[in-house]
Amino acid sequence: MSTLVTGIGELVTQDLALGTLTGAALVHDRGVICWVGPAASAPAADDRVDLGGRAVVPGFVDSHAHLVFAGDRSAEFAARMAGERYDGGGIASTVAATRAASDDDLRALLARRVAEMRAQGTTTVEIKSGYGLTVDDERRALALAAEVTPETTFLGAHVVPAGADRDAYVKLVAGEMLAACAPHARWVDVFCEPASPHAFDADEARTVLEAGRAAGLGLRVHGNQLAAGPGVVLAVDLGAASVDHCTHLTSADLDALAGGDTVATLLPGVEFSTRSPYPDARRLLDAGVSVALATDCNPGTCFSSSMPLMIALAVREMGMTPGEALWSATAGAAQALRRTDIGVIAPGMRADLTVLDAPSHLHLAYRPGVPIARAL
Amino acid sequence: MSTLVTGIGELVTQDLALGTLTGAALVHDRGVICWVGPAASAPAADDRVDLGGRAVVPGFVDSHAHLVFAGDRSAEFAARMAGERYDGGGIASTVAATRAASDDDLRALLARRVAEMRAQGTTTVEIKSGYGLTVDDERRALALAAEVTPETTFLGAHVVPAGADRDAYVKLVAGEMLAACAPHARWVDVFCEPASPHAFDADEARTVLEAGRAAGLGLRVHGNQLAAGPGVVLAVDLGAASVDHCTHLTSADLDALAGGDTVATLLPGVEFSTRSPYPDARRLLDAGVSVALATDCNPGTCFSSSMPLMIALAVREMGMTPGEALWSATAGAAQALRRTDIGVIAPGMRADLTVLDAPSHLHLAYRPGVPIARAL
Repeated sequence: MSTLVTGIGELVTQDLALGTLTGAALVHDRGVICWVGPAASAPAADDRVDLGGRAVVPGFVDSHAHLVFAGDRSAEFAARMAGERYDGGGIASTVAATRAASDDDLRALLARRVAEMRAQGTTTVEIKSGYGLTVDDERRALALAAEVTPETTFLGAHVVPAGADRDAYVKLVAGEMLAACAPHARWVDVFCEPASPHAFDADEARTVLEAGRAAGLGLRVHGNQLAAGPGVVLAVDLGAASVDHCTHLTSADLDALAGGDTVATLLPGVEFSTRSPYPDARRLLDAGVSVALATDCNPGTCFSSSMPLMIALAVREMGMTPGEALWSATAGAAQALRRTDIGVIAPGMRADLTVLDAPSHLHLAYRPGVPIARAL
Repeated sequence: MSTLVTGIGELVTQDLALGTLTGAALVHDRGVICWVGPAASAPAADDRVDLGGRAVVPGFVDSHAHLVFAGDRSAEFAARMAGERYDGGGIASTVAATRAASDDDLRALLARRVAEMRAQGTTTVEIKSGYGLTVDDERRALALAAEVTPETTFLGAHVVPAGADRDAYVKLVAGEMLAACAPHARWVDVFCEPASPHAFDADEARTVLEAGRAAGLGLRVHGNQLAAGPGVVLAVDLGAASVDHCTHLTSADLDALAGGDTVATLLPGVEFSTRSPYPDARRLLDAGVSVALATDCNPGTCFSSSMPLMIALAVREMGMTPGEALWSATAGAAQALRRTDIGVIAPGMRADLTVLDAPSHLHLAYRPGVPIARAL
């Protein structure tokens, strides 16, 4: 069953050959785009949708989110806004609430969060474990996440659980826990942040990532969030698909990123919600680094699921143009997931389309906070 | 026809006696709240709505918006984000587009914008003229605005039209234009900003405001947006209901506000969208000044209609607690409009209620960008 989409005010394809089109139409069939071109020469289709002049962009790709959790840390947020400092320690309260929740409770929360994202234009979301921190709880989180997305990430190395022996925990993560989780995961990730007593140093991170790679998983790293550290260089060295946060970068980090094929994923909602300085996206772009934007949606440091807000923050705070920010939220984030079937609107790509209640993509930054984006 | 509302997770009344309640219910009848109290002792009603644990707050009061306009300045926005400076000059392009639009075009745009606000939890909006700048175009803007809100504001003194003689224009605004507009307006306002060549100085502003007062209108002032200036002191001196922006305040301005009964209305969406320093709400609150929050929704300096984003920015950027920010977006903004029937949930008040898809009001700042608020 094919559908012709017309009345597209602006079509941002992110395809190098097609570019950004006005007066364009497209046809999709069984979830795949089969034609893009001038509306006047559109082929026949079984069905037709007219968008009345609205802009169409690739569905947002949220390549970093922690959606398998129970409980709420709004009180911690309010305390932080009143001056308390974040060091990753609050994760323990989410771990307790998540372990206590039933499968069905977590399933309902996940479904609600994915629907909330879709209603804001996100069509692909990566989901991490990391609030279980036992073999059974991590495996359960990934099995539940795999019900709603193929982009599942094993993050047993999120924090060292309260009271655990560090070395024993790293061994567990890289051994028995990985073995239980790998069948449900596409990726392995580590919170590499020596500045936090709860997170992992470079050697610990390397142990977990190399074990994950040996188990067939792709690599991702949380790095350089709270301070400059070894995360970025480690990620590039191991060929990780993405290193996320990149808030504090040295020139050596920048050189490593520019010379490798690891995407720098920026999460400006975290800086917004922790009142921290923003990463310097302009510096990364000017050095030729591929930059992605994602929400990091999680109950502690950024409980936003809004990719449009991330785009607006990237423009306001990080020196990106509206076009660069949109690229990073679509094609760039697809690259951060090593996906070649999403993030771009072109024949053969998935028909993941987001409609803006606006005539152009500029409105994503021009109309901050206004819910103008939705998945078609 | 009375309606009982139950299943309220948290009820923020903004009423000094009632406070913030859990386990509460309320009854409204023909648009007025007639009972608030513990759910267990709720009276019978004709109808019943269960909110499933969602929080309820007073409908947001957006006390500063410029909604009667045509056209789009997204390209100007993108240029400004790339480094160009704002001095109020871009208003001319909106004036041209607005004059060229038909009544029905403007009516449709207004209806769409008010609906967009309502869908985000705003139940009262003030609407200014100011994109007509001729007797007929200003009168038309106010007549159209009066179709959708009682809070209409004559802002002929928005800018001096391109090519006009300043003195002659001020005389027109305070004379013939005011006479034509006053029947459709509740308020008169002036963009008092000597730092901008397009706006008005203290003497010009006083002339317009005193004429408006003589015509029976209440007073509002745009003041101290681009630099410290005479706007705040003038507003307090004339007993204006509100002085809006207050981005650059001297200690004399602070003293004047603390000693008067003029509300300081902060518009952080403007600072967000013009990449300017934010006003210091904490300093105002600590001095005992009543602070309101509004969007300033307009095509030039802030095309956001999102009161939740203003709350989130007030918490992130201006030192307000989530509770203070919510007060300023409801009861404080009602005070800025000298309204005693809105902004508070209590018997006798209008049943303007906003429901949050969240268990508490903290989520307005904790979940930035996520559309969790809607008018009931």
